[in-house]
Amino acid sequence: MVRKPTPDDKFSFGLWTVGWNAQDQFGSASRPWLDPVESVHQLAELGAAHVTFHDDDVVPFGSDAAERDRILARFKKALDETGITVEMVTTNTFSHPIFKDGAFTSNDRRVRRYGLRKVVRNVDLAAELGASTFVMWGGREGAEYDSAKDLNAAHDRYAEGIDTVAAYIKSKGYDLKIALEPKPNEPRGDILLPTIGHAIALIDRLENADIVGLNPEVGHEQMAGLNYTQGIGLALWAGKLFHIDLNGQKSIKYDQDLVFGHGDLFSAFATVDLLENGFPSGGPTYDGPRHFDYKPSRTEDFQGVWDSASANMATYLLLKERAQAFRADPEVQAAFEESGVLDLAQPTLAEGETLDDLLADTSAYEDLDVDAVAARGFGFVRLNQLALEHALGAR
Amino acid sequence: MVRKPTPDDKFSFGLWTVGWNAQDQFGSASRPWLDPVESVHQLAELGAAHVTFHDDDVVPFGSDAAERDRILARFKKALDETGITVEMVTTNTFSHPIFKDGAFTSNDRRVRRYGLRKVVRNVDLAAELGASTFVMWGGREGAEYDSAKDLNAAHDRYAEGIDTVAAYIKSKGYDLKIALEPKPNEPRGDILLPTIGHAIALIDRLENADIVGLNPEVGHEQMAGLNYTQGIGLALWAGKLFHIDLNGQKSIKYDQDLVFGHGDLFSAFATVDLLENGFPSGGPTYDGPRHFDYKPSRTEDFQGVWDSASANMATYLLLKERAQAFRADPEVQAAFEESGVLDLAQPTLAEGETLDDLLADTSAYEDLDVDAVAARGFGFVRLNQLALEHALGAR
Amino acid sequence: MVRKPTPDDKFSFGLWTVGWNAQDQFGSASRPWLDPVESVHQLAELGAAHVTFHDDDVVPFGSDAAERDRILARFKKALDETGITVEMVTTNTFSHPIFKDGAFTSNDRRVRRYGLRKVVRNVDLAAELGASTFVMWGGREGAEYDSAKDLNAAHDRYAEGIDTVAAYIKSKGYDLKIALEPKPNEPRGDILLPTIGHAIALIDRLENADIVGLNPEVGHEQMAGLNYTQGIGLALWAGKLFHIDLNGQKSIKYDQDLVFGHGDLFSAFATVDLLENGFPSGGPTYDGPRHFDYKPSRTEDFQGVWDSASANMATYLLLKERAQAFRADPEVQAAFEESGVLDLAQPTLAEGETLDDLLADTSAYEDLDVDAVAARGFGFVRLNQLALEHALGAR
Amino acid sequence: MVRKPTPDDKFSFGLWTVGWNAQDQFGSASRPWLDPVESVHQLAELGAAHVTFHDDDVVPFGSDAAERDRILARFKKALDETGITVEMVTTNTFSHPIFKDGAFTSNDRRVRRYGLRKVVRNVDLAAELGASTFVMWGGREGAEYDSAKDLNAAHDRYAEGIDTVAAYIKSKGYDLKIALEPKPNEPRGDILLPTIGHAIALIDRLENADIVGLNPEVGHEQMAGLNYTQGIGLALWAGKLFHIDLNGQKSIKYDQDLVFGHGDLFSAFATVDLLENGFPSGGPTYDGPRHFDYKPSRTEDFQGVWDSASANMATYLLLKERAQAFRADPEVQAAFEESGVLDLAQPTLAEGETLDDLLADTSAYEDLDVDAVAARGFGFVRLNQLALEHALGAR
Repeated sequence: MVRKPTPDDKFSFGLWTVGWNAQDQFGSASRPWLDPVESVHQLAELGAAHVTFHDDDVVPFGSDAAERDRILARFKKALDETGITVEMVTTNTFSHPIFKDGAFTSNDRRVRRYGLRKVVRNVDLAAELGASTFVMWGGREGAEYDSAKDLNAAHDRYAEGIDTVAAYIKSKGYDLKIALEPKPNEPRGDILLPTIGHAIALIDRLENADIVGLNPEVGHEQMAGLNYTQGIGLALWAGKLFHIDLNGQKSIKYDQDLVFGHGDLFSAFATVDLLENGFPSGGPTYDGPRHFDYKPSRTEDFQGVWDSASANMATYLLLKERAQAFRADPEVQAAFEESGVLDLAQPTLAEGETLDDLLADTSAYEDLDVDAVAARGFGFVRLNQLALEHALGAR
Repeated sequence: MVRKPTPDDKFSFGLWTVGWNAQDQFGSASRPWLDPVESVHQLAELGAAHVTFHDDDVVPFGSDAAERDRILARFKKALDETGITVEMVTTNTFSHPIFKDGAFTSNDRRVRRYGLRKVVRNVDLAAELGASTFVMWGGREGAEYDSAKDLNAAHDRYAEGIDTVAAYIKSKGYDLKIALEPKPNEPRGDILLPTIGHAIALIDRLENADIVGLNPEVGHEQMAGLNYTQGIGLALWAGKLFHIDLNGQKSIKYDQDLVFGHGDLFSAFATVDLLENGFPSGGPTYDGPRHFDYKPSRTEDFQGVWDSASANMATYLLLKERAQAFRADPEVQAAFEESGVLDLAQPTLAEGETLDDLLADTSAYEDLDVDAVAARGFGFVRLNQLALEHALGAR
Repeated sequence: MVRKPTPDDKFSFGLWTVGWNAQDQFGSASRPWLDPVESVHQLAELGAAHVTFHDDDVVPFGSDAAERDRILARFKKALDETGITVEMVTTNTFSHPIFKDGAFTSNDRRVRRYGLRKVVRNVDLAAELGASTFVMWGGREGAEYDSAKDLNAAHDRYAEGIDTVAAYIKSKGYDLKIALEPKPNEPRGDILLPTIGHAIALIDRLENADIVGLNPEVGHEQMAGLNYTQGIGLALWAGKLFHIDLNGQKSIKYDQDLVFGHGDLFSAFATVDLLENGFPSGGPTYDGPRHFDYKPSRTEDFQGVWDSASANMATYLLLKERAQAFRADPEVQAAFEESGVLDLAQPTLAEGETLDDLLADTSAYEDLDVDAVAARGFGFVRLNQLALEHALGAR
Repeated sequence: MVRKPTPDDKFSFGLWTVGWNAQDQFGSASRPWLDPVESVHQLAELGAAHVTFHDDDVVPFGSDAAERDRILARFKKALDETGITVEMVTTNTFSHPIFKDGAFTSNDRRVRRYGLRKVVRNVDLAAELGASTFVMWGGREGAEYDSAKDLNAAHDRYAEGIDTVAAYIKSKGYDLKIALEPKPNEPRGDILLPTIGHAIALIDRLENADIVGLNPEVGHEQMAGLNYTQGIGLALWAGKLFHIDLNGQKSIKYDQDLVFGHGDLFSAFATVDLLENGFPSGGPTYDGPRHFDYKPSRTEDFQGVWDSASANMATYLLLKERAQAFRADPEVQAAFEESGVLDLAQPTLAEGETLDDLLADTSAYEDLDVDAVAARGFGFVRLNQLALEHALGAR
């Protein structure tokens, strides 16, 4: 049995996850939207530490100021009562039809300006609620058709939008960082910033790149057939892993948003191993919330909703225990050595060695017994089997 | 009928493409490897301007110095006789089993040093032959298993290797740029730098980033379900499109290396449209060789090899004509206007406008008729149909 | 320019296609649902011959008998006025939450019985309106989780349901055939009968298999990375191609339902070539309606809706002309010969030849010059380039 | 720790798996081919019960009769010494370039006749060695280009070839069944019989369908994004699961042939659960060998080869224990009940009930409280979490 989570585990849930009404592309709602206040109470009971939300998840699109204040006061009360905090806020720039061609990169400048206003307004709310991360998922920034979008202008506008928001954050002195969330497609045929890499490439060209990083989602990378752990490895290496979205996806298909671990389970083990134990030879680490962005299946009633919320946390905790045992196992450490996993931290050029030195080192090239080096077995399959047996709790 | 290509068309072929012996994962060779000298002559006859090659394509792995000199002299003679030039050279760090766990990121430091030596040596050859681009495809840099690779160390080593080569190029004063070639998988389960975006993210963290860019391949991006034209659009925007690899791929599967256009034909039209006509509102352009990296199918004999080489060029030229007519059509320009394609070049904030100005502009948010703006039809399907009919030569 | 379609072209549209309100998984409606009567009139104007619909597309779920009669009378009037006929009817067993775990294979027997009733009732309507095909898309028959479904029982129930409906059709003497529509996933994680092949396998085990065949959709097969033309080739060969759903899909991702040709254009050419010209050496052919099952993009207004409807027909007609020219070209016929395309119709054993005869034929094995036969070039790339240039109207 | 396998576990290995020389599409051999005799001895030591092979794995292509006899005598001696038996034999109709366009469906009739002879000859060897299954993988039966293959003729020839072989088996009185192995692509762009379903559709149209079934491979189905367990569920239901190929694959990409469980681990659990425990409400079962068709990674030396062979068996045994505990857990059985998993075995029409009876049953439709039925939660997520925790050994 898995232990019950506590706030120290830093589990966080989007209100749009448990709260979802289960309406999908091919069917109407199978549950009502949940009152955010109820979600906060229930998640607290289950052991979560934080919630996150889109502006429209809490305050319906188009609410007037009085209604907005009333709703937010009630919401803050729930936070106070439960000890739940808001660690991240994000903006819905994808549901209303005004955003049907995107927000920051819509081909209609009125929409770009409107979108920017909506986002900036939400920055204030994020700051007011004490969030430390401001996620931006540009789900509608993209196209179905190649001729429909000037890609150079689109990247210009995307950068302009993010930089403007980042400058605003700085000008206000908010302790808030922006985290972009890549996704390859759905709801658009091709979305801009489709992967972790593309998003970093854009960020690197921003004036305010220092406060802009990533919020990579398990399923989004896997929808492009990419390895999520490798992706967050790059993001960590690049100093850009600001937040994470954990969930489950089975192969390349529509965005499934399954419970964490209910997709590629062994890959989830590797992700938890990296998040909890870091790289084998050290390096940057992630210390933020463990945030779940999933959808309770449309077949479930409210009991199923809460069971699914718990399942995310239980699987994470279980894999964490297993990953800790994996790293602590002397046989695994010996296998790391044998497979050269720890060798890779050693620079190719020795300290002080120049390329000229290497060029002069005949043992490196001219005199190397190439066939002998080539014959070395790396023992990767055995190492992977050790990982698998630890993941399965069989060692 | 399509016109015959000329050197002005800047068509370029890898010697490993037409020269391939058609051995694949499940079968032995169906043709002998072609003599590079013969390939040079044949490609000249067909109208190509350039060839490219891996070191081992011309000089077999392990040749001694005398053999190497003899081979290279004969090869240069063929270049002289035909007027074909070498515009790009690349290094084979993936075929020999010494590279089975990669070259710059092998878990065995001896291999990393050996790989670096092999690459540097090949830089000299590239410079000697007058190439302007030095491609690096790290096809074996990766892993099948998550535990097999320290991802932080791997990115460190990858960056170290590329930076060392770039520094060498600078120190020698060579007029040579490095172009990294991303690929998501095959032959490794997950390859490092799987997409255009990931490669830019690494490049941005190099000391010598100024001479390092990209050589994106059509099929490699499509193997991740990504839009190639969008990818090179980002690369252009980022100032990093140094070279291109044109070929064909059908959906997400093994690396097919079909003739250009024999995969996703309509996407190929969009690619040619961007390469030849640039972005609709201007911006960075690509002016380098049109390089084909494809494989003549294993079912073909030598006649089929040359037919396939010609097919690449014929399809490109045909799509180029169609793309020029597309842009020149007043109905298309009007459709661009109507769809807002040209609007996107306009900054979201007007010249001189600050965010505070925007926040004060109630017409942008408070007073905007959201539903009216949302009701606008973008006419993207009609625009796409115009593109399709131009691609098909039906307008 | 493409000629205007006429009813002789047998173009058919689902009312749910042009009528769609453009609500998707991540956004609310960008258009109102269209009145079916208006769609019928518009489609007639554009040159379509037929419409098709789900019961709920015309008569809202839960309407009482009087309301139903009133709606149907008005609908029939539109048909009469326009000459449009209903060639196919299908049942919505996926939108209402009662079907959240499927209809014929729901784990709740009450739902299975209710679903069967809903389908049978709709058979009567189909017959009444003179439809010749009754499509069944089991979009919710499936699961997200392996433990959630007894696969043996599920196939038993699926077969029971279809057989019961087929028996009802026969008992009533309706001139109606059932066509199953396969799909690999979405909205369920894995849908039963995911491909053309799986559906035929089930059909073959029905008691009333004679009146049950297929309605394969371009995008559904391509969502599994499968070749649509190959799929309908198998269905024709198996005598089971009862109906078709034409649309567009780009690679393996969510169900895009693009305009026909706006996905994989060259594959669309091959599909039209098969539908219009049949197999190169003859065999079964398809003579039914050319039915479009697509979605006008969410970015479009009503003008865009009708432009997209026209685009489907224009592309089909264009590719039909091109495919006819392709087959009529003597160079293509010569290439078919050279590539052995026509050889394949010749049985491996000659007429009257037994296997014993073949075993005794040393020229077939013992004395065959294997290397000489292996050296033959098939000329497939050149043949494909001929097809491509015909598709592009360049020959 | 996992227990050591014994012959009672019925583990079987292809000689081409452990014996593979690790040459791939992009690199030369990293190990020599293993002597089949050595493989037999080693596999016996590790606990395997059977081996399988292609004709050419044991007797090199083109060997003369004397050489063939000598080799086979030595091979049989190894079998005798170890107690290993040959349970399956298959024919290599894909490696030699004569088969570059297929064997039974090559566009060259000489190849079709040669291929048929090669297969029939191998049937005799299979019978002689006591194999019970004769696998046919038509890896080269297919095309890269739509115009290259007459699909009707291709299916005719495919059926002719298989039927001829099946008739031969019957005529000889061999106790041998044919098992077709589907694969969607690689090495051909699109392979005929791409999935389990397509293969059954062909089999159903054979004259000798009774002795022809399937040998589905985990990775091959997953390369099309399909659920392997669902696929073999259909094959069992259809009475066609004659053999299995277990291995690992990560998402949709090239054919990885990883160790069983090293791909989608949780899916492997479901597969073992079905193979060992059958369907929840009973039905057809699989009782044949547990056959591994995988490739030891190219990074491995011989120690790694044998470690990988053991890993397949260890993972299978581990998942078997877990699957048995899963089914034995009363909480799981209760969850099955609650989720309606066991309800699905109940026919939709009661015993003796006719459709007319159902039509007259107003409680099924007219009086059903649709919203109440729709509100039922199926508890699938909780059930899946129970499965996951059992798979992980955490309950």
